[in-house]
Amino acid sequence: MTWSLEPVGVIRSTIARLEDAPLFYTEGAPDAFVEVLPQYAPALHRMRAGDEIIVVTWLHRGRRDVLQVHPRGDDANPLTGVFSTRSPDRPNPIGLHRVRVLAIDGLRLHVDAIEAIDGTPVVDIKPVVSSADH
Amino acid sequence: MTWSLEPVGVIRSTIARLEDAPLFYTEGAPDAFVEVLPQYAPALHRMRAGDEIIVVTWLHRGRRDVLQVHPRGDDANPLTGVFSTRSPDRPNPIGLHRVRVLAIDGLRLHVDAIEAIDGTPVVDIKPVVSSADH
Repeated sequence: MTWSLEPVGVIRSTIARLEDAPLFYTEGAPDAFVEVLPQYAPALHRMRAGDEIIVVTWLHRGRRDVLQVHPRGDDANPLTGVFSTRSPDRPNPIGLHRVRVLAIDGLRLHVDAIEAIDGTPVVDIKPVVSSADH
Repeated sequence: MTWSLEPVGVIRSTIARLEDAPLFYTEGAPDAFVEVLPQYAPALHRMRAGDEIIVVTWLHRGRRDVLQVHPRGDDANPLTGVFSTRSPDRPNPIGLHRVRVLAIDGLRLHVDAIEAIDGTPVVDIKPVVSSADH
């Protein structure tokens, strides 16, 4: 049994190449844009600048047959199952990126630091909720 | 363009029916098990009891054509785009569940409170990482 994922948007970033992408958002990732496809505009209703969201991406350059990696590509780190790493190589290469919405212009969300290359497909957007504000 | 998601495991829970599932993990969700499929055993290497993980599920009962909902199914809450809600109804019904691993027995992870019904497919598992411990 498998399921079909559809893109709902795309990342627009100044990071054009995989080899230029930082490994973590604190490591110099630039702010970027999430461009939502027009047919999903209603799903943005009531989103506001200042909101914290989780952008769910499909890491389309990931290798799906890799089950263990040396974290951060460093052989000094012990071989680790991908379920304990953030490697884009994994059976279903889903990426999670927690960001703040800086501004919204129609279908275009300006978000802060995100470590994804230009053109990365977005498959979902979720609010960050804590039990306190739920 | 679409992508194919494969199950890597399944949730085993005492919550058998959708109408019995709490809406949030703090609302009486029971602890549960994540059963990983045998072919993905290598991806669990080095996972330990005590680890905090994000279990990524496919909310197979979600309606993919719903773009706006009244949060928590309560008409008193204003109609809101699903990208600002945790509704299982959304274009790609991906669920995120942050849990702690209580114990590991082979392919079976015992995890704390998770608001997912028995049989929910698991499509990825990720470590919780902060910039401090990355």
